[in-house]
Order: sequence, then structure tokens, then C-alpha cells
Amino acid sequence: MFHHSSKLQYEVRVDKPEPAFAKYLQQAIGGVEGEIRVAMQYFFQAMGARGDAKYRDMLMMTATEELSHIEFLGHAVALNLEGAPVEAKEEAAKDPVVHAILGGMNPRHILSSGLSAMPVNSNGVPFDMSHVYATGNLAADMMANATAESGGRVLASRLYNMTDDPGMKDMLSFLIARDTYHQQQWLAVIEELGGWEKALPIPNSTPEEHERMKDSYYFLNTSLDEPTPEGRWTSGPSLDGRSEYHVEEKMKPYGQKPDLGKARPGSGAQTEQE
Amino acid sequence: MFHHSSKLQYEVRVDKPEPAFAKYLQQAIGGVEGEIRVAMQYFFQAMGARGDAKYRDMLMMTATEELSHIEFLGHAVALNLEGAPVEAKEEAAKDPVVHAILGGMNPRHILSSGLSAMPVNSNGVPFDMSHVYATGNLAADMMANATAESGGRVLASRLYNMTDDPGMKDMLSFLIARDTYHQQQWLAVIEELGGWEKALPIPNSTPEEHERMKDSYYFLNTSLDEPTPEGRWTSGPSLDGRSEYHVEEKMKPYGQKPDLGKARPGSGAQTEQE
Amino acid sequence: MFHHSSKLQYEVRVDKPEPAFAKYLQQAIGGVEGEIRVAMQYFFQAMGARGDAKYRDMLMMTATEELSHIEFLGHAVALNLEGAPVEAKEEAAKDPVVHAILGGMNPRHILSSGLSAMPVNSNGVPFDMSHVYATGNLAADMMANATAESGGRVLASRLYNMTDDPGMKDMLSFLIARDTYHQQQWLAVIEELGGWEKALPIPNSTPEEHERMKDSYYFLNTSLDEPTPEGRWTSGPSLDGRSEYHVEEKMKPYGQKPDLGKARPGSGAQTEQE
Amino acid sequence: MFHHSSKLQYEVRVDKPEPAFAKYLQQAIGGVEGEIRVAMQYFFQAMGARGDAKYRDMLMMTATEELSHIEFLGHAVALNLEGAPVEAKEEAAKDPVVHAILGGMNPRHILSSGLSAMPVNSNGVPFDMSHVYATGNLAADMMANATAESGGRVLASRLYNMTDDPGMKDMLSFLIARDTYHQQQWLAVIEELGGWEKALPIPNSTPEEHERMKDSYYFLNTSLDEPTPEGRWTSGPSLDGRSEYHVEEKMKPYGQKPDLGKARPGSGAQTEQE
Amino acid sequence: MFHHSSKLQYEVRVDKPEPAFAKYLQQAIGGVEGEIRVAMQYFFQAMGARGDAKYRDMLMMTATEELSHIEFLGHAVALNLEGAPVEAKEEAAKDPVVHAILGGMNPRHILSSGLSAMPVNSNGVPFDMSHVYATGNLAADMMANATAESGGRVLASRLYNMTDDPGMKDMLSFLIARDTYHQQQWLAVIEELGGWEKALPIPNSTPEEHERMKDSYYFLNTSLDEPTPEGRWTSGPSLDGRSEYHVEEKMKPYGQKPDLGKARPGSGAQTEQE
Amino acid sequence: MFHHSSKLQYEVRVDKPEPAFAKYLQQAIGGVEGEIRVAMQYFFQAMGARGDAKYRDMLMMTATEELSHIEFLGHAVALNLEGAPVEAKEEAAKDPVVHAILGGMNPRHILSSGLSAMPVNSNGVPFDMSHVYATGNLAADMMANATAESGGRVLASRLYNMTDDPGMKDMLSFLIARDTYHQQQWLAVIEELGGWEKALPIPNSTPEEHERMKDSYYFLNTSLDEPTPEGRWTSGPSLDGRSEYHVEEKMKPYGQKPDLGKARPGSGAQTEQE
Repeated sequence: MFHHSSKLQYEVRVDKPEPAFAKYLQQAIGGVEGEIRVAMQYFFQAMGARGDAKYRDMLMMTATEELSHIEFLGHAVALNLEGAPVEAKEEAAKDPVVHAILGGMNPRHILSSGLSAMPVNSNGVPFDMSHVYATGNLAADMMANATAESGGRVLASRLYNMTDDPGMKDMLSFLIARDTYHQQQWLAVIEELGGWEKALPIPNSTPEEHERMKDSYYFLNTSLDEPTPEGRWTSGPSLDGRSEYHVEEKMKPYGQKPDLGKARPGSGAQTEQE
Repeated sequence: MFHHSSKLQYEVRVDKPEPAFAKYLQQAIGGVEGEIRVAMQYFFQAMGARGDAKYRDMLMMTATEELSHIEFLGHAVALNLEGAPVEAKEEAAKDPVVHAILGGMNPRHILSSGLSAMPVNSNGVPFDMSHVYATGNLAADMMANATAESGGRVLASRLYNMTDDPGMKDMLSFLIARDTYHQQQWLAVIEELGGWEKALPIPNSTPEEHERMKDSYYFLNTSLDEPTPEGRWTSGPSLDGRSEYHVEEKMKPYGQKPDLGKARPGSGAQTEQE
Repeated sequence: MFHHSSKLQYEVRVDKPEPAFAKYLQQAIGGVEGEIRVAMQYFFQAMGARGDAKYRDMLMMTATEELSHIEFLGHAVALNLEGAPVEAKEEAAKDPVVHAILGGMNPRHILSSGLSAMPVNSNGVPFDMSHVYATGNLAADMMANATAESGGRVLASRLYNMTDDPGMKDMLSFLIARDTYHQQQWLAVIEELGGWEKALPIPNSTPEEHERMKDSYYFLNTSLDEPTPEGRWTSGPSLDGRSEYHVEEKMKPYGQKPDLGKARPGSGAQTEQE
Repeated sequence: MFHHSSKLQYEVRVDKPEPAFAKYLQQAIGGVEGEIRVAMQYFFQAMGARGDAKYRDMLMMTATEELSHIEFLGHAVALNLEGAPVEAKEEAAKDPVVHAILGGMNPRHILSSGLSAMPVNSNGVPFDMSHVYATGNLAADMMANATAESGGRVLASRLYNMTDDPGMKDMLSFLIARDTYHQQQWLAVIEELGGWEKALPIPNSTPEEHERMKDSYYFLNTSLDEPTPEGRWTSGPSLDGRSEYHVEEKMKPYGQKPDLGKARPGSGAQTEQE
Repeated sequence: MFHHSSKLQYEVRVDKPEPAFAKYLQQAIGGVEGEIRVAMQYFFQAMGARGDAKYRDMLMMTATEELSHIEFLGHAVALNLEGAPVEAKEEAAKDPVVHAILGGMNPRHILSSGLSAMPVNSNGVPFDMSHVYATGNLAADMMANATAESGGRVLASRLYNMTDDPGMKDMLSFLIARDTYHQQQWLAVIEELGGWEKALPIPNSTPEEHERMKDSYYFLNTSLDEPTPEGRWTSGPSLDGRSEYHVEEKMKPYGQKPDLGKARPGSGAQTEQE
Repeated sequence: MFHHSSKLQYEVRVDKPEPAFAKYLQQAIGGVEGEIRVAMQYFFQAMGARGDAKYRDMLMMTATEELSHIEFLGHAVALNLEGAPVEAKEEAAKDPVVHAILGGMNPRHILSSGLSAMPVNSNGVPFDMSHVYATGNLAADMMANATAESGGRVLASRLYNMTDDPGMKDMLSFLIARDTYHQQQWLAVIEELGGWEKALPIPNSTPEEHERMKDSYYFLNTSLDEPTPEGRWTSGPSLDGRSEYHVEEKMKPYGQKPDLGKARPGSGAQTEQE
């Protein structure tokens, strides 16, 4: 069960409201790199967690923290919209500054939300829950979470660079810090469970006889004119310790030329296809 | 520039067509765990790759391989739809077997595609390109790719379990194998670049003064009644080697109680809010 | 800031797991009538609330309650999926009961989530945040909320009818009860603010000179052959007390026949249009 | 069956074309507050209306009116785009005014529609029919309609404020007027059917034994530190006349701590979860 | 301006209600091949039509007809849902026939719409207005319309085959007939304007100097092992009469190997990319 | 199976990077008129092609070419983003030129992709695979393809007009040329198969007894006040040679007034509807 307390997890201070930056901040709320995504992702993973219950608890606790991130970011958006134009005055209409403000804003911050945050990204595209990755496989979920936090910290760093407002920089430095931790939190689960050697290949419960092992350890060069880019992935022991990597330069296709024959009468094709 | 050769990368054999399994296979084509996603994700990452050109080449080569996976899966869907009902005959209409087949199929495999594959998932929801994660940050992209391949191999393993068709099992064992490799391929890039210690926190180019470091290394227990789930993430050296993990049991909120004051005249609020 | 405690707000008991009912329950989680929607809607309304702060508090408190509803419904979905088939065994494949179970399930409950809840509706369509209505106008928001709770209680009543499981009926009777209250909670705000007479038309801050008042109080019969359906809306005092309703049987169009003239050279039209 | 006559329902006059305002107007066509939504919502409600046929007729008549609103708004968009730049001339490219026009426009008004209206909102996001709310429950539908018209009038009022064009203000004053009426039209149905006391809780056909009545009349304070916001919803008779409101300050969770146990072999989890 | 009359354009008779067929029919309402799409496509094309006004009139007249098609199809859906189960009775729950009915239905026909039509396709995916193609180019629009009617008639023919209900077959035979005409109606515009020779390439207003003419008339064989499929498109005069077709077997890429160099500091990349 | 070679199909040269034009170019990548769409459309049509195998080969070859178009357009987007602002410097923040650049850009080109292409359109809306039209009917597919190429060439022509950059104009002149050819390529298939007379109505395999032929050849004038727009479609032989066109001025509705009667108990309606 969820509860709420009245103060924001982190202080939000906007020294100079900037409607365009409100639009930018939306990416951290409703973007695929944003906080709705991680809050909901960890929440759904927690609800589907099977196995050691501590992972469920951990997921739910961090889901709850992310809800608090949405909350202070939402406030930051609203504060950046204070003073944004809501009326076209004749003089203003000629003012290039007003034009620039309007051109840089999300118009729905005026028209739809009345100067407050929306669950959309910086293009105004609503967040869609297909981005909540929760597979029921602990390792796959941990990877998805570390990925989400990586994208999140990349975004927060870019937002930090795109503002000169000290209050906003301060708030973003907190987000950057929490994303630092959360990246490692999820990767630490993998380490605790024995590291990549034990976790890979994900799912590690797939029996070897379900896998065509002779295709499991080579890099396939599909280029007609480029040499294989050599690296850790082209030779040496595999990360799961089961084999050695090698390279297939020009794989001969294993399969047939596909052919579906004629269309069946009654299937809606042209007569010529039947 | 892309080229094509006429044979499938892997042989597709369907011993007993099963229209319901055609629907299931769609998840591997148009699901978020599917092949359109990885093909397009690696393609867009390649197009945006900056830094050492070998990663660009590697991404493009594997993108190209994934296009070939779409191709043989698409053929597998069509072969599973051979013989599916396209006409309601009066006798058939009473046959529970026909009903079961129809109830288990995607109706659009009859109505829209004429018994062939579509770029949709197993619920018939079209793939949407917002799932193509390409950040311009090499480490974040590698994480996203290893995640996608983890979800992909979980899916392929489940599909393997859900069919008894030997041809389908054989084809899926190839997919499972390639997903094994691709998981490691992307993680190997991280290892080659110095491992998690060097890669984390992602982006590793964010200056420390942009980060509120005192919030970077603790697990936040947001539960009112659960003890902190202890693990690798609650104590010991951080994975990036910069600090030690600890726990915050009951964080005192840093922030204020939010308050937006009154609504501005002309902003479309009720009079009572002004 | 959000917090969590470990027990569910309401007990979830599934006497006989029913994978098809798990699919049905998804509508109450990720449908437009569902709990993600109301949780997020009240949350975003709270973050944008201007005027008397008590409405903000009230919105945030109920948003928090709705998050707890997602949580127990998510558990109910998972419990209904216990025992669902994850492997096609040759014998099972011939069993009509297994076929019926599979035909009635969401395949992604097996393939994507590993037998647990997803943020999707009963068709498997992911929830999309465009359904979070938050206008910044208190009365419009209250209407949207009472509407959401009406749809929610219609849904919960239908789900109640569609199951014979005593545990599920018990859980749904709690949801029905809370939806009863929440409908009235939001309408009570309107009553407290003076009722419809004061609230209407929404927004009540629009100056009368912005409104073409002669078009504000008639029902327009656009039918060529049906008499006007008479009722409270065709005569008598308007609900806002400003006028009397009447009927326009055959409104003469006020406007012109539209004409855009020729296409401009360089605009990508056919030559014949220029 | 539908018919059309050649003149617009309301006159559209644009004194000074403003491509940015064309983008703003799109919200009234393809936004969730817009005319496609209400036209389609009333149309689908009419097609599903059961019970007294007069409500069906009324819904269809107003659906038809809303189609006419799309039509004149579409013309208004096109007229605002007259004269928008379709060619980058070298001199123009340096002109800050041209830049401001282009920055404020929807680029697809040039690239995709050739200077005319599209079924998208002011962010260019296409309207999606999941916003057509039609439940088959008359009262829930009336609520949804009054809500839609409230959002619509809030939007129209904001658009009115955002333009200085006399023709556009005139057209919007007509929309504001019709939204005034339509809000009341739908609420009048509820009044005619006996008012909230009879209509609530929606659906009023749910038997009391399907509802856990002891949870039907309290406000739940889920905050850890805020007092309950007192109001019409915390005490006094309920709007449906069945009970009295009260407050639950600290509800003890009714439910258990959720636990899903171990993952099943074959379900695609990690071995450690089994 | 739109008007309505009370009778359906075509009679709807359902001899034996079939909830699964209601789901199938949804494709003709809310699918990409369906009637909402064509109604809205012709409507938006009409609103943006420039040049000879008769095309605008024609588009609006047919848009209006398509609205009437939605209407009778919506009624057909509702009639097919008459008698569908809305309550799980203990005995019924064991009945395989009831199971088959439920497995074949769209659950939202029970849960969300209360046994009536929705603006969704046969997978329950809502129609999304991005499918309304209206370019402002008359010939491109005519092509899009003939395409939509082709998909529509393919669908109607498949639906015809999938039902044994005489009433439904009769109704579909009307749809098939109207789609026959509408395909030709739009193609006849192209013929009237001088046929393909004059219309192509679309837009025919693009000056030849904007086109790299030496790449305008060859079929590019991108296969490594397949001979060029010979046909009307590989030799002979081009359809626009401007040139002759030929074949490029192995085009030498015109372009460079792409290279973006290093990432810029401050752009959120990894340090190794800079 | 797919392969790749390292050079771009066409040279990409950006003389003066223009971040706003990067946003515009996105329409040609991820718009409905763009290259992802055609690449995937031809690919899925090829996978579902039945009948003469040469059409399958032709589709796959051109699908492959379109993948190469995505690739060079993606590079063009990245080159236009070179030098775009990634940091808000105090001086810059006051510079109207910087403001204009930022206002005209897609903010996600900075925040999400790190200055490279995304699979989105010029509004930042991700491409969604529902636009991949592949019906299994050869003629319907050819029409859809010619339509897509028409929209594509209209777009490319508009993009050509909207830039002054010689490199971009050169690249677009290649796209315009290829779209010229592809329009005709698909229409040539129809000509080869006997032209419209044989192809129409699509599908030409629908038996005449499935069609209510008396409704197959008239233009329906649904206007109350406009004369029928006369043209090739109102008289003369039909394009399929089966009949003559005529006009229905005022069609008498064939159907009934729809009536669904009362709502069923248990279906979630209001009591008044039962």
C-alpha cells in the first residue's frame, strides 16, 4: 500500500522561469528515459517477482522513490511556466521575444494543462506503457533497469548542460546522483547472483538442448566489403565461460529460398495469384 | 548500402501448421522483444555512432543480421497459416475444432494480411519505433542492446516451450543461440572499454561537479515497515570504484511543500482559483 | 514524497485460477477505465493545482490510494495465472480444455510477462498517458474524475458479473465501493463551490463578451426527419441560471461555402491545381 | 444516414493569417479536447444506446453538429496557413521573421498536408480513437460528454485569448457558446432522470450485495503528515442519499503481504528464481 | 454543414447473432481498411482541396456517404452481440460452447462498450488518425483513396467469406458494391486529368531540374544472386512517356562511407567517444 | 538474407548544417511518407507474396533499396546537427539566433539521440508499423506502393524547396528521381497484368454473386444543395468494362431506423435503460 508525505523529495527552485526549459524537462517525466517509465517498470516488476522475496521488496522501494522524482520534476515544470504568455496582446504580438518564447514552448502547456506538467515527452508525445519492461526473469529485468537508468542519467546530464538556472542545475545534480546509484544497484544484483558468468545467457534456465550451440559463439560479419571489427567479442573465452568466441566471415545461408506457392481461392487475392 | 541474397539465413520447416502459433510467433517479429526492434535499434545506433568507427561497423553488421531474422520468422508465420480457415462453411461453423482454431488466431491474419506475417506483436498491436533506443552514448546503447537480446532470448525460450513442432523447435534453437551470442557481444564492448568500473556511471563524461555526490551511493528504503533488503548494493565498494554503498532508512525530504498559488486571470481556470 | 508499506490495501484471494479472467482484469489496470489512469490523472492534477490548496492535498491523497489499487489488482492477475500452461505437451496439445484456456488468455501473459500483470488493457493494448486529463481548471478536472470513476465502477460491476470466484467477487466488491465514494467525492467539490449554477459554464471565468450568447442556449436539431427529442434541455431555465433553453429546428448556416482557390506554385500540388 | 450542405455552420474569417495559430487551432480539431473526439464519441454512444430512444436521437443530432464544427475549424486552419513559406529563399533564410514563423509552425503543415488541416493536435500527435468514451451506460456517457465539453470550452477560451485576429475571435465565440450549451445539455439528462441522487452511484443497477458498503462512504487520507482536507466530501449526507460521509485517517491495510513463491520451471525465469 | 436522417443507408439484418463475428466486423469500422478511415480521409482532403472546386465537392459527398457506412456497420456489430454472455454462471462456466464464445469475442465488447461497436479494429486496437492521408496533391490523394477502397473491398470480401449469416452476407454485398465504385471513382479523376501519362510523376509540378533524371528510369537489382525479374518495368517506354525503362544490375554506390568523427564534449557521450 | 556494404547509396554533403532542417528531414525517415515505411511495406509484402514468384523478388529488391535510403537520410540528419547547441551559455542564452535555432529544432535531437537521426517524423512522433500495408492481394499492394511513392515524392519535392543547401538539394534530387521510378514500377505491374480493366474491381476474384451489382456503378450525391460534380465518374463505361456509370441524386435509404431496445440486466447499464 502506498502513502504520501507533503514535502518534495528534493527542493525545487527556479530562479528564472523559462517556458522552453519546461518543455525540455518533460522528457525527464514522460520520455522513454523518464521517471514515469522507471516508476512503473519497477512497480510491475515487483508485482511479478518470483523467487527470493528481497528483490521484490527492493523493486517496490525504488519504484516508490521514482514516484517522488516525478513529483518534484512536475513542480519544476510548473515553476518554469510561471509567467508564460497566456494572452496575445497586440503589442506583444509584434515583440520578437514573445515570439521566441512561444515558438520554443509546448503549446499544450498553455492550451491543455494551464501551465503545468503533463505526462508527455519533450515533443509532446504521451508516454505509453509499452515501455514498461517486466519479463518475469530477474536478470533480464535488472538489465532493463540498468539500461533505463543509463538513458536517464544521459538525459539528466544533457538537461544540466542546457540550462543556466542555478536552481535547475541543483535539482538535476540530485537526479544525476540518484541515477548513478540506481545503475549500480541493478547491476549489483547480477554480481550478487554470481556475475555475468552465472547469469548469462539469459535466461540461464534454458536447457542446452534447446539451443543450437554451434551458432552461439560467433560474430557474424554480414558486410560485403568491411573487415570484421576485432575485439573482445571475436576471440577469447565467452563471458559465460562456456566457449570461445570466433568469427563467421561469410556465412552460407542455412535456409531455403522461401516460396509460398499460389494463393488459395477465397483468400482475397487477385485471380492471377491463384 | 544494403543487399539481399535469396536464401533464408536459417531453414524454416513447419511440420504441422498451427495458426495459433503463427500468432505467438508475431511477438518475435513485432513485439518489443522482437527482431524489428533490434534490427532498427542497431541500425539507428550505427547511424549515430561517434568515436571509434569499429563500433559503428559492428552495429551495422548485426543490424543486417537481424533483418535476416525478421525474414525467416516472417516465413515461419506464413507457413503456420497454411490451411487456416478462410471461409465459414455451415458444417465447419458447428465444429468445435474450427472454433478453437479461429478463437486462437489473430483474425487479421485472415482479414488483413491474407495468411502472412504482419509487423505486430502477439496481441496484434503494431510495433512502434519509440522502442528503438539509440542515445549517442556508447555504453548506454550497449546496455540497451544486451537488454533487448535478453528479452529476446527469454521470449524465444518460451516460444520453444510452447510448440511441439520439430521444425519450429529447430528454428527457435537457432534464434536462442544467436541471442546467446548477441547478449555477450554487447557486454564485451563494455569489458573491452575497461569494464563497469570505467563505464559507470553512464555517461562517464559527466563532470563530478554536476553531480550531488552525497546522494550517489545509498539505497533508499522508502518502506514504512519493511527492513532494507541487504545485498551487494547496500554495502561494500561501489561498482565504479569511487565510493562505498550505504543505506538511507528514512530519508528526510530535502524539499519544500509545493505550492503554485493562485491561477492567473486569462489562463482558463475557474474564477474560484484566481 | 511517496512511501510504501508491505501489505495490500485489500486482500486478494483467488479460489480457482482462471487465466482468461486475468486477461479481463487487465482492463481494470491498464484500460481507460482502469487504475493507472486515475492514479496518474489525480497525481498530475495535484501537481498543477492552483487556488485553494486543499484540493491539491485531496487529489494527491486519492492518487496515492489509486496506486494501491493497481497493486492489489496486479496481484490478482498473477494469482489467476498460477498454473496456466507454459509448455505445449503433445497430449495437452490435443486437449480441448487446454486449447480453450490458451484461446482465452492473453498470449503475452506467457510470452512477455512470465505469468504476471502488465500495464495493458484486456486487448493487450498498452495504456497511453494521453488519457490523463488535467486541465488546470478545477471544475473541468472534477468532472473528468467523476467520469473516470463512473467508467471504473461500470467496469468493476461487469467484472463482478463475469466471475464466479468468491475471492475475486470479494475484491471487486471493494473496488465497487471505493468507486462509489470517489464518484461523489469529486462531485461534492462542485457542490461545495456553489453547485452547477456557479460552476457552469466551465470555465466560469470566461468573460461574457467572449461568448456569442445568442448561440448558448438552444438545442440544435440537425436531423432532416426526426422531431426534436424534448426534455430538460429543450425548455426551462438553463442549469447556470443565466437563460432559458430553446430549440433550433433548422438552423440556417451562418457561414460561407468554403473555397481555398488555387494551389501555390512550390507547394507540391499537381500542376492542374495551380 | 448522413447528408451535407455546402455552407459552413459558422463563418470563418481570418483577417491576418498566422501559421502558428493554425498549429494552435489543431488542438480544437485533433486534440483530446477537440471536435473529432466529441463527434465520434456522440456517434458511437448513439449507435450503442439502449433504453429510451430519445437519447439516441439526441446523441446523433449533436454528433452531426460536431462534424460541422470540425469542418469550419478545418477551414480556419487552412486560411491561417495562406501565405506561409513553402520555399527557402536565400534572403529569407536570413530574415528573423521568417525564422520565427517557421519555428512556430507545425512543419507538417508544409511537408505533409500542403497548407491545410490535419487530424492532429497542436503537438502534431494524431488523434487516437481510444478517447471515444462510450460505455453503454447512459449516465456514465452523459458525464463523459459534459467532461469533454468542459475541456473543449476551456480550450476554446484559451485559444480566444491567444489570438488578436477579430475573425478568429468571432469564430471562437461561437464555439464557446455551443460548448456552454452542450455542457448543460448532457447534465440536463441526469437532472431529467432524477438528478444525482437517483443516478449515483453509476451504474445504479449494481445490486447492493455486490458492493462492500462499509467502504463506500469514507474519504481515505493516505498522507503521513497532512490533515484531512475537510469539505462536502468528509461529512454530511452522501450525494446519493444512501449514507453519511466520514473520514478514515489511517486505514489499516485489509490485505496480505503479496508473495508469488518460486517461478515455475519452463516459464523463462532465471534458475535462481525456481 | 452536416445533417442526418433517421434510417440506415442499408438494411442490417442479423439472422443468428455471433459475438465473434462482431469482433471481425470491427475491422471494417476501425481498421486501416475501414470506414472511419475513408470518411475522415475524404473529409480532410476536401477541407484542403485547392484547384477545381468540383473535386472538393466530390470528396465531401463521398466522405458523407462513408459516415453512413460506419453507422450501419455499428448497428451490425451491436446486433451480433445480442445475447452474448454478460454473466458467468457456474453451469455456464463449465460449458465448452460458452468458453468458445468468450474466447472468440473481444472482451471489451462486454467490459467497455456494453455490447456495442467501438472505434477499434478486430484486435481491439483503436483507430489512429495518422492513417488519414491528405497531401494537398490531388493525384496523390486520388491514389491514396483508390488504395483505401482496394483494401476495403479485399476486407469486405473476406468478411463475406467468413460468415454464413444471410443478413450479414447481404449487407456485405452492398459494401463490396460501393467499394467497387469508389475504387473507380478516384481512378477516374486521374483519367479525366489526362491519365497516368499526364499525372506522373506525382507531383507533376516538380521542375525537371529538381530531379536527377539519370536515376529516374531504372529498376535497381539489389540482389546478390537473383536475376532481375523482367517485366513492364524493366524495358519499354515509361508510363509518363518521358523516357525508357532499363535495369541497373549492380549499382556502384554513389556515396561515401559515412563517418561522424568524435563526439562533442557536453553532448552526453562516453569519454572514450570524445 | 541481407548483406551490407560500407558506402552510402548516394553521397551526402551538407554545406551549412541546419538543425531545423534535420527536423524536417525526419519526415522522410519516420513519417508516413518516409523510407522506413516503404522499406518495411515492401519487405512484408514480399514475405507474404503468393502467385508468380517474380513479384516477390521484385518487392524484396526494392525493399532492400529503401533500407539504403534510410541510411543516407540518417547520415544527412546527423550532418545537419553538427554544431547544434548542446550547452546553454549565459551569453548564448541572450542571443536571438541561438533562440531561433533551439526553437526550430527537435529538442530530442539534443536530449535523446545526441545529435543524430531518430525513427520519428518531423513532429517527433515515432513511426508506427500499422502503416505497413500488405494485404496479400497483389493489385491492392501495388496501389498502396504507388501511393506511398507519390506521398514520398511530394514530400521530397517540398523538402527540396525548403532548403538552400546545395548538398541537400543534390541528395533530394536523387530521392525525387527514385520516387519517380518507383511510382511507375508498381503501376507497371498492374499494366502488365492487363491494366485496370482486368485488375478492377480489387480483388478481381470476388464472385459477382457476392456483390450487389446494382449499387456498383453510381456516384452518390449526398449533398442537400450542391449539384453532382460531373466527370469521368458519372457517365460512360466503367473502368473495369463491366457497366456504365450513373448518378444517384437522392438515394432513398435502403435500411431501417436502428433500435436496440432495452439494456439487459447485468450488462452495466443504468436501471432506467433496462
